[in-house]
Amino acid sequence: MSIRIGILGYGNLGRGVECAVRQNPDMELVAVFTRRKPEDLSIMTEKAAVCHVDEAAAWKDKIDVLILCGGSATDLPEQTPVFAKLFNVVDSFDTHAKIPQHFSNVDAAAKESGKVGIISVGWDPGMFSLNRMYANAILPDGKDYTFWGKGVSQGHSDAVRRIEGVKNAKQYTIPVDAALEAVRNGENPELTTRQKHTRECFVVLEEGADAAKVEEEIKTMPNYFVDYDTTVHFISEEELLRDHSGIPHGGFVIRSGRTGWEKENSHVIEYSLKLDSNPEFTASVIVAYARAAYRLAREGQSGCKTVFDIAPAYLSAKSGEELRATLL
Amino acid sequence: MSIRIGILGYGNLGRGVECAVRQNPDMELVAVFTRRKPEDLSIMTEKAAVCHVDEAAAWKDKIDVLILCGGSATDLPEQTPVFAKLFNVVDSFDTHAKIPQHFSNVDAAAKESGKVGIISVGWDPGMFSLNRMYANAILPDGKDYTFWGKGVSQGHSDAVRRIEGVKNAKQYTIPVDAALEAVRNGENPELTTRQKHTRECFVVLEEGADAAKVEEEIKTMPNYFVDYDTTVHFISEEELLRDHSGIPHGGFVIRSGRTGWEKENSHVIEYSLKLDSNPEFTASVIVAYARAAYRLAREGQSGCKTVFDIAPAYLSAKSGEELRATLL
Repeated sequence: MSIRIGILGYGNLGRGVECAVRQNPDMELVAVFTRRKPEDLSIMTEKAAVCHVDEAAAWKDKIDVLILCGGSATDLPEQTPVFAKLFNVVDSFDTHAKIPQHFSNVDAAAKESGKVGIISVGWDPGMFSLNRMYANAILPDGKDYTFWGKGVSQGHSDAVRRIEGVKNAKQYTIPVDAALEAVRNGENPELTTRQKHTRECFVVLEEGADAAKVEEEIKTMPNYFVDYDTTVHFISEEELLRDHSGIPHGGFVIRSGRTGWEKENSHVIEYSLKLDSNPEFTASVIVAYARAAYRLAREGQSGCKTVFDIAPAYLSAKSGEELRATLL
Repeated sequence: MSIRIGILGYGNLGRGVECAVRQNPDMELVAVFTRRKPEDLSIMTEKAAVCHVDEAAAWKDKIDVLILCGGSATDLPEQTPVFAKLFNVVDSFDTHAKIPQHFSNVDAAAKESGKVGIISVGWDPGMFSLNRMYANAILPDGKDYTFWGKGVSQGHSDAVRRIEGVKNAKQYTIPVDAALEAVRNGENPELTTRQKHTRECFVVLEEGADAAKVEEEIKTMPNYFVDYDTTVHFISEEELLRDHSGIPHGGFVIRSGRTGWEKENSHVIEYSLKLDSNPEFTASVIVAYARAAYRLAREGQSGCKTVFDIAPAYLSAKSGEELRATLL
């Protein structure tokens, strides 16, 4: 019997989940829930239903895991605890500073309902967190570095688009090679914000807009750009669509640390991702954790979990025997 | 109260465990067991006892986790099941093909005694296995690559040393850059043994030995060298000791895979290690899993486990709250 998956929210992430479910033969997508009019939504999976979110409760016994594909700013803080009362849920809540509060809210709801809620699943938080944690446990005497990119930052792209005179824009976050190399060599450098990443913007101007003024406004924007070396390119709308319509991303988690009686030996652990599609990769991680949520719930577990709390084998469709024989 | 650690076998790995325990304030080394005469063995930890292995049973209630530091060929297949009857144990059994049998033997012993036995801990098997497994669960449609090195292969060094006329030798396994790059670019190449790694030998000859004959014998040695491009350098004993006395190693686990409704997007997940000391790093992984063994046993679990079966948080000295606040 397949694991029956529901999706709440059909943006880039929701579509990514739909694709990922299709790649996992032990799962099937049964319903997509939306805040839009269901009849206006066209999905790719033929057999799945499209329903208004207000109907979700009626699916309580027809869905094994509901995957929440809303945003972290306003959707998930509210949705995840609410839906954890009815379903096993997985979300990709990524506001790092608010994770403890979110965990506590989801934990209370899921314990009450006897469901499992897995939060902050994806690559950062998610796979990057896991790799930070493993590396810290192995090398207690060391230093962590996380670099992001090269990739599109949605938040920074939005910030540029809000500037007067900007018609459209994409922003790439790029790790600085020299900083990466120093870290990889075990030099344990102290790096400023400016030394770790550069930012590159591709901007389409409104007709008659002042390019110099827009460039100045981008480069001096507090929080988003002022602490970085930023390059701004003005291009046509056609060029933007042709060359910058993807959503690539990636990054590096590196820990260097020392061992030995006199700490005489140095080690470098590196995990990196190079992703054509940020939402599809995030969705692929989420779907593996949905399998874990299903299994944990069947074992009678309940409450909120993160990637730290879940044994790796729960993510795989393979049995323990198969895993030991083929991947250990 | 500290986690009380015992070590069985005081070679490079045993000494590495001793160093790693010192770096973890929640642990203490209480005893080292040896097959040699205990009075002939000098260890670094002042407060720990040195005992003959035959006395180990008397330490049954004074040790929380016994770390088995013998070899995979003959020591561990026998020792791990035997000591799992008395102690929670961790080993680094690394004969991949025999893991299923070893698992089954340790599982039976540990279930009978109510202890936890964690096998095949280190970096390969170990951290490399974990990364293969996570990457396979996330990207079901993809291809795995493992590269080793640059590092010293003990088995290959031994094989060279057995050749007549060779006084001493060190062999390095080196991944081929072009192959690594092709994999990183998502090209999914089919690679022969020769295309993945080269081998480099540093050889000290006995007086009067025939260098050309030794070189020929190395390069044509079945299983060990014949399928590789091998370089042989003849050096003095002084040079070998000065430049090649370390035990560095490392490697790369890479999975590239595709997502999207039409599999239109490509992703590359890479995990790599660069290690000054292979045994000290292996020991550092083992000690983190010793913490897990201790905790699992306290929860009442028993039987054989691998890295696949253990939730990451069990490895860390930090609480769930701390982990979520600092590393997620």
